[in-house]
Amino acid sequence: MKKHSWVWLCFSSVILNLLLASYVFFSNDDQQSQLNWTRKAAKEAEDVASVFCSGHGRAFLDGILSISSTTNHLEAAEGGSGGDDDSLPSCECNSCYYGSDCSQFSPDCPADANSGDPLFLEPFWMKHAESSAVMVSGWHRMSYKFGYEHGTFISKELERHIRELHAMVGNANTTGKLMVFGTGSTQLLNAAIYALSPQDPPSPTRIVGSIPFFPFYQMETEFYNSKNFEWEGDTSKWKNKVLPSMNFIEFVTSPNNPDGELKDPVLQGPSVKTINDHAYYWPHYTAIPAPANEDLMIFTLSKLTGHAGSRFGWALIKDQVVYQKFQDYMTLNSMGVSRDTQLRALKLLNVLLAEGKELFEFGHRTTRTRWESLNKVMSASERFSLQKLTPQHSTYFQNITAPSPAYAWVKCEKEEDEDCYQALLRDGGIIGRSGSFFNAENRYVRLSLIKSQDDFDWLLQRMKTLVSQEQVHDEYRVKAI
Amino acid sequence: MKKHSWVWLCFSSVILNLLLASYVFFSNDDQQSQLNWTRKAAKEAEDVASVFCSGHGRAFLDGILSISSTTNHLEAAEGGSGGDDDSLPSCECNSCYYGSDCSQFSPDCPADANSGDPLFLEPFWMKHAESSAVMVSGWHRMSYKFGYEHGTFISKELERHIRELHAMVGNANTTGKLMVFGTGSTQLLNAAIYALSPQDPPSPTRIVGSIPFFPFYQMETEFYNSKNFEWEGDTSKWKNKVLPSMNFIEFVTSPNNPDGELKDPVLQGPSVKTINDHAYYWPHYTAIPAPANEDLMIFTLSKLTGHAGSRFGWALIKDQVVYQKFQDYMTLNSMGVSRDTQLRALKLLNVLLAEGKELFEFGHRTTRTRWESLNKVMSASERFSLQKLTPQHSTYFQNITAPSPAYAWVKCEKEEDEDCYQALLRDGGIIGRSGSFFNAENRYVRLSLIKSQDDFDWLLQRMKTLVSQEQVHDEYRVKAI
Repeated sequence: MKKHSWVWLCFSSVILNLLLASYVFFSNDDQQSQLNWTRKAAKEAEDVASVFCSGHGRAFLDGILSISSTTNHLEAAEGGSGGDDDSLPSCECNSCYYGSDCSQFSPDCPADANSGDPLFLEPFWMKHAESSAVMVSGWHRMSYKFGYEHGTFISKELERHIRELHAMVGNANTTGKLMVFGTGSTQLLNAAIYALSPQDPPSPTRIVGSIPFFPFYQMETEFYNSKNFEWEGDTSKWKNKVLPSMNFIEFVTSPNNPDGELKDPVLQGPSVKTINDHAYYWPHYTAIPAPANEDLMIFTLSKLTGHAGSRFGWALIKDQVVYQKFQDYMTLNSMGVSRDTQLRALKLLNVLLAEGKELFEFGHRTTRTRWESLNKVMSASERFSLQKLTPQHSTYFQNITAPSPAYAWVKCEKEEDEDCYQALLRDGGIIGRSGSFFNAENRYVRLSLIKSQDDFDWLLQRMKTLVSQEQVHDEYRVKAI
Repeated sequence: MKKHSWVWLCFSSVILNLLLASYVFFSNDDQQSQLNWTRKAAKEAEDVASVFCSGHGRAFLDGILSISSTTNHLEAAEGGSGGDDDSLPSCECNSCYYGSDCSQFSPDCPADANSGDPLFLEPFWMKHAESSAVMVSGWHRMSYKFGYEHGTFISKELERHIRELHAMVGNANTTGKLMVFGTGSTQLLNAAIYALSPQDPPSPTRIVGSIPFFPFYQMETEFYNSKNFEWEGDTSKWKNKVLPSMNFIEFVTSPNNPDGELKDPVLQGPSVKTINDHAYYWPHYTAIPAPANEDLMIFTLSKLTGHAGSRFGWALIKDQVVYQKFQDYMTLNSMGVSRDTQLRALKLLNVLLAEGKELFEFGHRTTRTRWESLNKVMSASERFSLQKLTPQHSTYFQNITAPSPAYAWVKCEKEEDEDCYQALLRDGGIIGRSGSFFNAENRYVRLSLIKSQDDFDWLLQRMKTLVSQEQVHDEYRVKAI
């Protein structure tokens, strides 16, 4: 080989050297930030997330294991399962879908609009996978108490985030309010009854709600069978009849479950206290006319971010004595709320604060669209009607916002349809909750609009069929005449 | 340059190319398993874990943020904090330690042996960082229910792990028992009272315990002020006096809190039911003579793995009707237990099952050593004594095991020391719980032996000083005579 060929070869080789070296240098830089003890758990989570469930289900880290099939989760299996063997958790399919990858649909399956499972928000969290993920170390917060000065069951950082969020959304005035966390708002509703009713009173505190009301209020009151309080039923019986010697606790749910109306207390007077259940007082479900500012307000993560399974809620309390009784209840009932859940809630709220309006816009768009679709179908019906909700000015969106309730409160209009659910909906393949569940007439049925998109789509389809059968039935009658 | 120089240069360059290329090829292999959406959360957790707290504290992901100082967490800061800015959570120091890196010790600080905070197990989880870490995705288990056939609040995988663990340890027979999860055993103790006492009985069910007993039993019973049950105090009042018409519930805590003794029920008869609190029935705290096999047994993660902050416990229940009442309580009280916590508990128990005896050996070694050290110090005292515990055969360790209780039940032996805590320990700079807290004489004080090593070391030091002062005092008296 001639000299100039060698020169040329050398020159090329050195260029390649430089390229490879710079590659190594930069990838080295990445290596310095290599993960150590978190890598395995991170990998496991990604493997499980990549299990393919056809968009009609998902696999969870704590799901029941299945031997990984190359058809279902090829990609995951290639990366190694991270588990004890080659198995990965199976797909858990949405209602009416089945098969190892949830690709099969069962057309005989009823549309389940029963529970208030807020899965409509799941796609938001899948989109924000990176910012909402949280790595929990094995030694995270093992102690009974957070290590602040006197020890407490609640995370100060989480409390601060909640206050910031209320200020950002403008749905509650937290100034001068004390905060207690609960295992969901459910536990706080229980705590509230105890906190507001005196111990061993001359006569038990009367607990009331306005029909239709969320049945847990009555069920939990009766379950405790306490000498301190008793269930007294509907507020209407006591309107303008409250004497100063009678202690009352009124549950005020605003927006109301099941009908979505913004509510005010019915009873008045110095002996009446109210528990303000604001589970649905967020821009997804209602216009926010003004910040709520009652003495005792209860909120829940379930309906805010959709994390019902996390069991996390909080109470905002004005009075120091009531606050102390809440604390006593939380200590004796469960020694506070899971610190794992508090960590997760912190991460989720951090996303809400960082993303501005995105969750609320997504949430409101989804509920509004579902409400409009259902209204459109129902408008062709003479048999069924929906509750009337009007557009209202929302201080949050700074405009007039269309209704977007969490539930449809369906009424059967015909006199003979006294039991709307049993007579019509159930046979039409729709699962809902009868009015009697809410102490109302069975002429009403609650249908949930906040479950997964699959659930809602199937509900709408079933409803369309029901309404079209009604029209066929009417046409048949007209022809017969 | 001569030709052979060019040849030589080319040859070197090609060799270097080959080396670099092979490096790139192998590191490429690693790249294929690069993490995606979990990377940021994993990095955050590692950064927080690397915050330097001198071995006398730790930083947590949800801790209060501090501007990162190069002195304290140089390494972490170099890798970037992963937070909104340059800040990382501050160190949270063990009692008596302070300063930004917990390096300062305050010699005037009292030794806190008050709570049963099981931090003695924290080093085990730090050692097993990789296998105990868990990555929670933003969309993990948002639903109210696990998606099994009829929906449930409890993870089947976790239930299976718990049954396996009991079988491995041999401390409970789970065959034919139903399982309910609670927000710590605390919530299950509450549920148990309701589940075992009939609604609206002719006379309230009498609830009793054997002095000294865990005070929550009485406090929660009285708090509910229910028509169904009432607190009746010590079992001794009713021994051999139970009539068939009287309903009783006896709390049996075995091993007992505070004195560590294995206990049997005191009351007998068909109208007596027992709630068997087995929080401490694990090899760390006691020999396991045989699997417990009562109709209603309650266990907690707090004292098993040390995760008191997670609030997770379980009940094993034989009777179907009692089980149903537990379920009702859990539904009305909190709609089950946090799914985030269930996921974490699954991961932790998975480590126990995979590691065999390691946690129990570590736990038992720690409690036994602490008990022996304290005994050695106390043996020089005439003023103080400890409860007598004898070595017993353990089916788990397959040998005679030395005592290893969770608490020292200290007695002041001198007649004049009626208030042991106020008169002696408190002034000696030791924080403990007076006997009256457990319905016993104030001649007794409970000291916790399961807190952090720092806490125990300081307790031992304070105790040594107290005992040596006693000796100086005695010598002085002898000389004076």
